[in-house]
Amino acid sequence: MTATLIRNIGELTTNVTADSDPCGTLRDAAVLIDGGRIAWVGPDADAEAAVAAHREPTHSDRADAQRGAVEPERDGSRFSGLEVVDAGGRAVIPGFVDSHTHTVFGGDRADEFEARMTGTPYAAGGIRRTVAATRAATDDELRARLAGFAAELRAQGTTTFEVKTGYGLDVETEERLARLAAEVTTEVTFLGAHVVPAEFADDRDAYVDLVCGRMLDACAPHSRWVDVFCERGAFTPDESRRVLEAGIARGLLPRVHGNQLGPGEGVRLAVSTGAASVDHCTYLDDADIAALAASDTVATLLPGVEFSTRQPYPDARRMLDAGVTVALASDCNPGSSFTSSMPLMTALAVREMGMTTAEAVWAATAGGARALRLDDVGAIAPGMRADLVLLDAPTRVHLAYRPGVPLVSRVWKDGLAAA
Amino acid sequence: MTATLIRNIGELTTNVTADSDPCGTLRDAAVLIDGGRIAWVGPDADAEAAVAAHREPTHSDRADAQRGAVEPERDGSRFSGLEVVDAGGRAVIPGFVDSHTHTVFGGDRADEFEARMTGTPYAAGGIRRTVAATRAATDDELRARLAGFAAELRAQGTTTFEVKTGYGLDVETEERLARLAAEVTTEVTFLGAHVVPAEFADDRDAYVDLVCGRMLDACAPHSRWVDVFCERGAFTPDESRRVLEAGIARGLLPRVHGNQLGPGEGVRLAVSTGAASVDHCTYLDDADIAALAASDTVATLLPGVEFSTRQPYPDARRMLDAGVTVALASDCNPGSSFTSSMPLMTALAVREMGMTTAEAVWAATAGGARALRLDDVGAIAPGMRADLVLLDAPTRVHLAYRPGVPLVSRVWKDGLAAA
Repeated sequence: MTATLIRNIGELTTNVTADSDPCGTLRDAAVLIDGGRIAWVGPDADAEAAVAAHREPTHSDRADAQRGAVEPERDGSRFSGLEVVDAGGRAVIPGFVDSHTHTVFGGDRADEFEARMTGTPYAAGGIRRTVAATRAATDDELRARLAGFAAELRAQGTTTFEVKTGYGLDVETEERLARLAAEVTTEVTFLGAHVVPAEFADDRDAYVDLVCGRMLDACAPHSRWVDVFCERGAFTPDESRRVLEAGIARGLLPRVHGNQLGPGEGVRLAVSTGAASVDHCTYLDDADIAALAASDTVATLLPGVEFSTRQPYPDARRMLDAGVTVALASDCNPGSSFTSSMPLMTALAVREMGMTTAEAVWAATAGGARALRLDDVGAIAPGMRADLVLLDAPTRVHLAYRPGVPLVSRVWKDGLAAA
Repeated sequence: MTATLIRNIGELTTNVTADSDPCGTLRDAAVLIDGGRIAWVGPDADAEAAVAAHREPTHSDRADAQRGAVEPERDGSRFSGLEVVDAGGRAVIPGFVDSHTHTVFGGDRADEFEARMTGTPYAAGGIRRTVAATRAATDDELRARLAGFAAELRAQGTTTFEVKTGYGLDVETEERLARLAAEVTTEVTFLGAHVVPAEFADDRDAYVDLVCGRMLDACAPHSRWVDVFCERGAFTPDESRRVLEAGIARGLLPRVHGNQLGPGEGVRLAVSTGAASVDHCTYLDDADIAALAASDTVATLLPGVEFSTRQPYPDARRMLDAGVTVALASDCNPGSSFTSSMPLMTALAVREMGMTTAEAVWAATAGGARALRLDDVGAIAPGMRADLVLLDAPTRVHLAYRPGVPLVSRVWKDGLAAA
């Protein structure tokens, strides 16, 4: 096993909070990676001593040595080789955690985007076009598409991402989407309750029954999460609660799309079901904010949607000031936000939502981890997964200061650098 | 000489205008590149015939052959090898032409950006900090920085870019900046009249004399353009005219920064001096619009500035509807817009300035070429430089539809693909 030592890190975002700095920033730092996990974090000046300590024989090694049982190739060390990477004074952050994507689908809707941007009205049914294209796609076509998005996410520094179903809306296709998503991530979300499909337009109850019954049965084995789009035009609060409770009864963890297009029950439903996250949160009243602040439910903001639909941005500042935990995610999907760029989400959070760059970077990393209830990603500390991004920039501020510029220089996922 | 044939292009933006389509779009197209220039453009179905025609002996080849003088390796063809690239149905556009950058400087101002975004007032003197850092930098430091920006631009599909001086503001440093810029581009702009430096605060006239005299003498040999920041707080219309006329007398071509922070004389000065471009154009009255529409002066819009300063975006729609030629550029600089991303400029033009994606892509390619008075870049047609970008997307619309995502798959500059 070869370990990796990243030296000469000008600014290290650990997300191990100290005082008022949410990012737990270290300057002139180094990180030792061993066995896919962070082994040590500290001042660069201490890096050689840290490596020596990690190479030192452990108690059991010494006991082995006394018995003459040390294998020659182990040579008293826990790792047999050390790759040293010089960060050149640049910044390192935890890999981005994108807790909200819809990246398993067929086709795209570029024409609909263009029509929206130029103010031309277009016929309804956007999502139904994607459903039709998704149903028509083969497993291999969807798999290739998903692999493309996974590579694209990785190239932009995203080391953990969630994928939702929701473009199948029949049992067979939803099962395919959940199964294919599970090939690329552990964070699979069953979103049969995305919208009511055309064929059930006159019998909503029957569709909710299907979602809570056979569709859930088919998807639960591939999924960790259950989600519902609780919004006027999608699912009512009562329907949404049925879906979440059915999912919970099958062992899935709840999350909610809510309060995107207008005020509603989404946030309160999320909090009352113990959801890990409620996503969008554009239209919140004081009671919503108070409920979020008093809960373990994260508010996940998706500014790519507002960028690509010209809707108002959610007020992150208000939520943060009230003590709400905020995450940022891309919502990558072909309808309302076809970006996968967590760096751009960070820039939009700073430009449009009143977040500092430190708050935005925290929200895009540690915040995403909270929204997915993962305790081993989103921070750089001993024992965490070695998911890190080296930026071509001296500080994380540059993610907002240099919008659109591909600043991701190198990405490690579980300690392995991208090829 | 190896030629290159790009086949199976799903959507080719030629910028050779046909009817109402500013992008001269071809579907299922192919492009033949030979000797660094575009040799042929047409339907993919005709590609093999086009290659054969270009391989056919010329009159002089035939004459040589009759004399028995054909070299075996020429074998009757103009090129000895052919690389075939399959675009896989994806989109190809002309390389971006970024007609406005300030990419030769020392230091950065990330702290100032952060302070501006969080509303904290900061001490004046932003640009003077960059001037101090630039004067303190060695030639090799500036050269390395400039090379980094050149690589960054190229990786994002920019194949032609302009570089301005203006962070030296003394004769020696301005000369260094012009000379170093000329190492990476032919489009060097002398911008000694960027602001009045601190040491001349009490004697503006002496500074303008210096700019028009010894500083111009030192910089003109390395420059093609002369520029001035005609704005309240920078240079008055009279001062600006003196600078432009001095530059013109030295054989430089004029361009102007104007109407960025408020109404003013910038546009009228640009038109009356025959400037190739007037840049920013946020505050225009009807007379400004009419003057631009009746002139050969391009309005170059720089939406990265508005994104990074929260100033109002210029109204591109109004200009286009009045018949003004519009270009897009990055204004890449450490103070007001530290992005080099022409894809993001395209997305912002669509999101914020009322441009269609076709208008935005035209403005970022052909528009930039007009703003630099270059007639061999910004379009894909026989005889033009072979500067092309293959996108990881089926259409150019995706540049706006997928904001922030690095969609540039391959870049050719003068027919050569990036390493």
